[in-house]
Amino acid sequence: MSKALALDSEYQGARKGADFLRHLEACPPELWYQGKRVENVRNFAPLKNGVATLAALYDYQWDHSVLMLETVDDRKVSRSFSITKDRSDLLAVGKALLTGAQFSQGMLGRDPAYLNRSIASFAGSADFFDIGGRTFSHNVKEYFRFVRDNDLALTHTILNPRANRRIGPAFQDDPTVSAHVTRETDAGIYITGARLVATLPFADEIAVFPARLLDVSDASKDYAFAFVLPTSTAGLKFICRDSVDYGMGPKNHPLGARYEEMDAVALFDNVFVPWERVFCYRDIDICNQFYDATGATAHITYQVVCKNIVKIEFFLGLISLMIRGSGLEGFQHIHEKMADVWAGWQAMKAFKSASEAGARLNDFGMLVPDWNPLEAARFMFPRLYPRIVEIVQQIGASGLVTLPTSEDLDGPLRAEIDKCFQSMRLEAADKIDLYRLAWDASVSAFAGRQVLYERFFFGDPVHMATRIFRNNPCSDLMDRVNGFIRAK
Amino acid sequence: MSKALALDSEYQGARKGADFLRHLEACPPELWYQGKRVENVRNFAPLKNGVATLAALYDYQWDHSVLMLETVDDRKVSRSFSITKDRSDLLAVGKALLTGAQFSQGMLGRDPAYLNRSIASFAGSADFFDIGGRTFSHNVKEYFRFVRDNDLALTHTILNPRANRRIGPAFQDDPTVSAHVTRETDAGIYITGARLVATLPFADEIAVFPARLLDVSDASKDYAFAFVLPTSTAGLKFICRDSVDYGMGPKNHPLGARYEEMDAVALFDNVFVPWERVFCYRDIDICNQFYDATGATAHITYQVVCKNIVKIEFFLGLISLMIRGSGLEGFQHIHEKMADVWAGWQAMKAFKSASEAGARLNDFGMLVPDWNPLEAARFMFPRLYPRIVEIVQQIGASGLVTLPTSEDLDGPLRAEIDKCFQSMRLEAADKIDLYRLAWDASVSAFAGRQVLYERFFFGDPVHMATRIFRNNPCSDLMDRVNGFIRAK
Amino acid sequence: MSKALALDSEYQGARKGADFLRHLEACPPELWYQGKRVENVRNFAPLKNGVATLAALYDYQWDHSVLMLETVDDRKVSRSFSITKDRSDLLAVGKALLTGAQFSQGMLGRDPAYLNRSIASFAGSADFFDIGGRTFSHNVKEYFRFVRDNDLALTHTILNPRANRRIGPAFQDDPTVSAHVTRETDAGIYITGARLVATLPFADEIAVFPARLLDVSDASKDYAFAFVLPTSTAGLKFICRDSVDYGMGPKNHPLGARYEEMDAVALFDNVFVPWERVFCYRDIDICNQFYDATGATAHITYQVVCKNIVKIEFFLGLISLMIRGSGLEGFQHIHEKMADVWAGWQAMKAFKSASEAGARLNDFGMLVPDWNPLEAARFMFPRLYPRIVEIVQQIGASGLVTLPTSEDLDGPLRAEIDKCFQSMRLEAADKIDLYRLAWDASVSAFAGRQVLYERFFFGDPVHMATRIFRNNPCSDLMDRVNGFIRAK
Amino acid sequence: MSKALALDSEYQGARKGADFLRHLEACPPELWYQGKRVENVRNFAPLKNGVATLAALYDYQWDHSVLMLETVDDRKVSRSFSITKDRSDLLAVGKALLTGAQFSQGMLGRDPAYLNRSIASFAGSADFFDIGGRTFSHNVKEYFRFVRDNDLALTHTILNPRANRRIGPAFQDDPTVSAHVTRETDAGIYITGARLVATLPFADEIAVFPARLLDVSDASKDYAFAFVLPTSTAGLKFICRDSVDYGMGPKNHPLGARYEEMDAVALFDNVFVPWERVFCYRDIDICNQFYDATGATAHITYQVVCKNIVKIEFFLGLISLMIRGSGLEGFQHIHEKMADVWAGWQAMKAFKSASEAGARLNDFGMLVPDWNPLEAARFMFPRLYPRIVEIVQQIGASGLVTLPTSEDLDGPLRAEIDKCFQSMRLEAADKIDLYRLAWDASVSAFAGRQVLYERFFFGDPVHMATRIFRNNPCSDLMDRVNGFIRAK
Repeated sequence: MSKALALDSEYQGARKGADFLRHLEACPPELWYQGKRVENVRNFAPLKNGVATLAALYDYQWDHSVLMLETVDDRKVSRSFSITKDRSDLLAVGKALLTGAQFSQGMLGRDPAYLNRSIASFAGSADFFDIGGRTFSHNVKEYFRFVRDNDLALTHTILNPRANRRIGPAFQDDPTVSAHVTRETDAGIYITGARLVATLPFADEIAVFPARLLDVSDASKDYAFAFVLPTSTAGLKFICRDSVDYGMGPKNHPLGARYEEMDAVALFDNVFVPWERVFCYRDIDICNQFYDATGATAHITYQVVCKNIVKIEFFLGLISLMIRGSGLEGFQHIHEKMADVWAGWQAMKAFKSASEAGARLNDFGMLVPDWNPLEAARFMFPRLYPRIVEIVQQIGASGLVTLPTSEDLDGPLRAEIDKCFQSMRLEAADKIDLYRLAWDASVSAFAGRQVLYERFFFGDPVHMATRIFRNNPCSDLMDRVNGFIRAK
Repeated sequence: MSKALALDSEYQGARKGADFLRHLEACPPELWYQGKRVENVRNFAPLKNGVATLAALYDYQWDHSVLMLETVDDRKVSRSFSITKDRSDLLAVGKALLTGAQFSQGMLGRDPAYLNRSIASFAGSADFFDIGGRTFSHNVKEYFRFVRDNDLALTHTILNPRANRRIGPAFQDDPTVSAHVTRETDAGIYITGARLVATLPFADEIAVFPARLLDVSDASKDYAFAFVLPTSTAGLKFICRDSVDYGMGPKNHPLGARYEEMDAVALFDNVFVPWERVFCYRDIDICNQFYDATGATAHITYQVVCKNIVKIEFFLGLISLMIRGSGLEGFQHIHEKMADVWAGWQAMKAFKSASEAGARLNDFGMLVPDWNPLEAARFMFPRLYPRIVEIVQQIGASGLVTLPTSEDLDGPLRAEIDKCFQSMRLEAADKIDLYRLAWDASVSAFAGRQVLYERFFFGDPVHMATRIFRNNPCSDLMDRVNGFIRAK
Repeated sequence: MSKALALDSEYQGARKGADFLRHLEACPPELWYQGKRVENVRNFAPLKNGVATLAALYDYQWDHSVLMLETVDDRKVSRSFSITKDRSDLLAVGKALLTGAQFSQGMLGRDPAYLNRSIASFAGSADFFDIGGRTFSHNVKEYFRFVRDNDLALTHTILNPRANRRIGPAFQDDPTVSAHVTRETDAGIYITGARLVATLPFADEIAVFPARLLDVSDASKDYAFAFVLPTSTAGLKFICRDSVDYGMGPKNHPLGARYEEMDAVALFDNVFVPWERVFCYRDIDICNQFYDATGATAHITYQVVCKNIVKIEFFLGLISLMIRGSGLEGFQHIHEKMADVWAGWQAMKAFKSASEAGARLNDFGMLVPDWNPLEAARFMFPRLYPRIVEIVQQIGASGLVTLPTSEDLDGPLRAEIDKCFQSMRLEAADKIDLYRLAWDASVSAFAGRQVLYERFFFGDPVHMATRIFRNNPCSDLMDRVNGFIRAK
Repeated sequence: MSKALALDSEYQGARKGADFLRHLEACPPELWYQGKRVENVRNFAPLKNGVATLAALYDYQWDHSVLMLETVDDRKVSRSFSITKDRSDLLAVGKALLTGAQFSQGMLGRDPAYLNRSIASFAGSADFFDIGGRTFSHNVKEYFRFVRDNDLALTHTILNPRANRRIGPAFQDDPTVSAHVTRETDAGIYITGARLVATLPFADEIAVFPARLLDVSDASKDYAFAFVLPTSTAGLKFICRDSVDYGMGPKNHPLGARYEEMDAVALFDNVFVPWERVFCYRDIDICNQFYDATGATAHITYQVVCKNIVKIEFFLGLISLMIRGSGLEGFQHIHEKMADVWAGWQAMKAFKSASEAGARLNDFGMLVPDWNPLEAARFMFPRLYPRIVEIVQQIGASGLVTLPTSEDLDGPLRAEIDKCFQSMRLEAADKIDLYRLAWDASVSAFAGRQVLYERFFFGDPVHMATRIFRNNPCSDLMDRVNGFIRAK
């Protein structure tokens, strides 16, 4: 095993929170926030709660070890790394993913499980990376073992900045803007330029995966690669957006003060990537087939669907508590709103179930959940989620406007607050807690970022529709209808 | 076996079309149309095509006997009568239902398979009918064998006419309007009054099942029963609505001239029902639990979901042909419309799959598909179907307005028609055939009745939402959210 | 005055029904229906009711002569021909249009008032037609007087058949399909080829106006013209679609048996057009500016908005009667549905009012209603109308399915019908009349054609959006926002 | 003039910002924020920007004095106090309101003009307050002059806290929660209890107006009153929600750092109200008719519609800049989104215009804009506004996620930012400014509060629909349809 992929000396297998924090202190990424370099992300107010949450997730997996961990080579590792071989594997992964998502009520988009499913899919289909005489499969498998056995958290980035959206990075006015190869040596390659939207920039590693649908041309080959690096690699910087954790604490901002995972732009300044961390290189076809051919698209979408099921469950619980707390159960329009959310939940669960029922071994022997139900799930959710958030606003109404803070509850006007903020079945303090949560799920800057995130998680909805149209010619159904017409 | 439930002397088991027609001639129901009694329904223009279609469906099952028939007691019987014991039974039934629905492109709501699933569920859960010391299980099981082994077609009616929708039939100004018991003897009961919406009034038998949610009161007991009768029983009349088969023939009205199944009001005038055809009687609790407790609700909904999958497939094929024929594949809004239909299709297929994956044996040993996915399916489809029809209109546009008839194509202006009705990839005659079909699926009176039918198939959508709200208290999800709040 | 534009010898000015029918008998258009030539349209079952309705409209204008007629040159003429000079003219026209639309509940799209507004706009802006040295203004003015003083009904056609929608008629595989000029003489021009969708083919005259947005090229000049002809001109044929008046009579099909205005394809076979009936010729720029520059677009849209206001009023009355008849006034979702329709109605009325308040004299001295509110009205109505129709279905529900006919009411089962078709506040016969009307407004083939007609009346909704986008650069609003940004 | 209604000694008539600030310092309201009393609101970070904005609005009116001010009794006063007598008055008020709204891009809901229209309506219809022998009209007129001639800013509150929403404040478990009369003397009345949602709590005065639709009962009379007080009155406290101005400054939060108007709960602790500040008292009928009978509902809605027009204009400018900046003008779905916003804008402008065209003098001689168009406007806007905000998200997409701050632009990574944040037609700094604004309009906590505010500004949308249903029986339209039916 190369030095670049060494096992941690202090633990092997699934980490606990303290392990994550120790590694973060030892290998801090270079984060920039509001024009300044972040000194110590663990203590940096806009980010520290997100960091602590990620650490807590590593403890949580041990609290739920039966479902979330499995034993490989005598080590406990996260089940999110499972290379599924049969349906029972897949169902076990599904349970682990649902359990993991409950930790954050589905609010962490970059739960490490997400990219773990990618890496496992690559490893389970590693031969794909050797197509055309390449020999990257070894790298993929070694990296898989490295990241699984060190239980590292990954961020990734798959978007190039493009001033002109209609053409690729090589054909922009300034082709040096996007991350591209500047030099190649026996030891590795050198990368300069930017990549957009790395969520969770305080992860351990960053996957720099191909931006999809690269045009096939020589000029584009400099942008055609997939590699993985420690986020702390020299020459790599992250520019953070401003945090939506405004320092109000979890009593006042129950979601924002916990689940700020942060989004960043990644800047590469002559960054060195050793060959053993490269998965593909200058091969545009491979880059374009990457996700789909290995089953990674299906496996990460399966993870996302699990997360979204839990996210809807959170909203369904929230809405039910609001209805019950305020005694709204007699209104038909409330029934319709709840039924809309419930039916959306059932749909996502049915898509998960159907993807399991239709799972098939791919060309490389890995079991991959059926794609069509997952495609439908990722097409529908970006419209369902904003509607659910709207329903929280519609049910909460003016009750979401003038909410006191926890400091008010601890202050001299408590008696007055107790009187005027109670609802039919909730004392004021409980009502305020509940509506604070509803506010942070539907009105706050955190809520707004979540809505935006879900709308565009899988890309432009219009492009998704085009992809569905192109991939589903429906020839058999056209034949059936033509047969009916000719039967006249 | 009583005389009332005798086997046909000429065949036993799955019928062919000729068997159905022979029985219809021998035992004609008393149908009224536009104020006159229908003399011979096989030759009666407004209905004869629907009758011929139903006969053809009986031939079709033999053409697809591997999927649609099974052998019981050495007889071939329709698989739609299967009392499912394990998942393979259910999957086989599902295939049979999908195959059967393809016969009519999903346009026959009262495909006999629909009520066959009810009767099979009752028979498979027959002990339910003996709860409280009653002894109706024998009737249920005998009737099941009778209808299966004679392969009879059933219509049913479950709605009472109620001038005031908020109260039951017993409390209307005139309590004699709805069908009710007038007399009881050792031989059976006598029924007088009306029931609404019997679809397929030229079926062999009519099931008169409890109108749901009867209030529990003595006055309501006269309306609390379930029984089955031949449609030709003396004293039973059906008033038909006016047909949407306007005699234009299948070239011009490809759907309306085939699939007019007709809806009727059933009038009972002192109609005698022998005890062996009674399933429950004067027991309001049993009436109210009837469908759900036996698994019949789930099994008929499963049939409907299969039918709806095929119906969407028909529309998806139709839409794909229109897009292809007119060269619309370059428009993003066309992609979005197609993707909407496609995703709706995937959702219905996923609900079917999830209901199979979650199927469980009920208290009586019959395997019942999981209810929640089916409930979601029946909640969503009434909104999906009108949207699909709207998409056909949006894609067809003015092409659906000025369509020539087949007589025009055979007339002296054929050359002119050939010139001005061609589309990018279709000759005029093919374009006209395709758009005729699109018109009959989205604009005609037949199309309008289909939309109405799908909107209200399972009742008022508002009531469905209320039912979902009431049946899903989401206590565990409320606990989860409360746990999160208290964790602060 | 040329012979082609002579006044009728028997009347001058506004016609009565008998005048229309006499003219139709004297000068019958060549209509083809189901492959055969229509002998006498007044007695031809699929069309005779529509013909009678148009005749009745001419009587109706005399019954409402104060609002609908005005005196010009000592003759009473229809106010729909008014060349508006000031706001009081416009308001008077508006009242006449609203009154006229009430005759048909807004169900006649080709109420003659519609094209009268075009012809009046052309005459009021006649100098436009002389731009570039042409001298067509004389023709326009003479024709205006001819059609006004004979009170003729016009159909029109503005669409070329195009197998390939993305290119003009000159560039299709077969450029002879669309109507085009084949010869030009001192007396006039000769036209051969087809035009789509002439609604009301039994009108007196047909306007053949430019298909919009002709590409500017020599090849397209053969398709660039505007002229008007008697529908009875030799060589001109109309192929009708099949009628949605199925002969059931006005009791059963209250709308379809009255308002079938018919749509047809117009075929020109070397048809001669005398110069005095030509308004523009081989001038693509003029053709493309035609409607907008003369104010005709605004004036016809104003007529359509008036018609649509009345159409919504019909639905609002219908819905209110259904709610009241069935005692649905206590349901919140019913309130929301009614409020949706009501608000749509207010919007259309407000657009009318705003177009009047912002009316301006155009370059030729004719008062033209403000365009923007009318543009918004025609953008919104195609989405509003299908929603209103859906609401009728949602309120009518299963009550729209099993409706007896008037023949049933006259038949032997009347007593039973009286019992089971009553609603909370309506006797059965009245309930049936009301729901028959609701059915014909929302479910029947007539209803379907109306929905289709309203969806596409002003063309493809996507193109309308593009037109709005292109015509409204919002520069001032961009400046305002930029000013705000720079103020930081 | 009583002391309570004295003119300010230093100015008379329209104020400037400095006047407002001086008064605020002299008479500070008792504001509570996060459990502590606010010492000096002008310097208090969460509120100071909102205070400065309100001050700037007073300067702005002098910068636009021709439109926004008028001369009364030789003083310049705000035109928002105009008691309209004819249409030109109303149009002038409309221009002033549009101009005023442009100051804040329509983001200030409690622009003082809003309540000024109420007070002017009360004064213009003052006789209403004397109905039944009362003599409050004098108070109303005196107060009108006082507030106009001192140009004071008002907040108001019209909602009682009610744990049980279905019953009035007198019938709650604890009837002392809501603000109620505890004592009455010759000098005035004493009030104790709470009122919800006073927006702009740092206004000069607070109007405590009747919560609508009080049940008529003796018990409710203690809650039936309307009065106005200085916000600095002894015993009156305001509990603020937490600010959505997070101290990031106007470069980063261009809206939130300017337009945080704050919402508060008002607590009355034995607060004394002198009689001259009481408008009605213990008269439930008067309380319930208050707004509508005086024309105040119409006049404030007219102000709101003017504000909403400007608000849409802001979004339309913003969207246009985003489309142009990123070169999205070629996408049809972008056209549709822009056209949706544009059509909504036209609708609001048409409603304004129609309300002017239909304005009528009320019983007291004040010109009141026509209600129906305004009712429709306030019914539609709560659905239109969230859709507009959604469109900003849909157009901005991932561009709204990873935005650098102004501090980043001033920091060492500026060169990299310049490269990777440019768009097709915008330099990075300009793109960031524009997308910051889009973010604050559609994603931030400020944006969320705006959406919530607009959804519920006029109350529960379901109640609004019920109000429309009840107030519009449509008898004439039912008669018209019945006439049509009977004509058969």
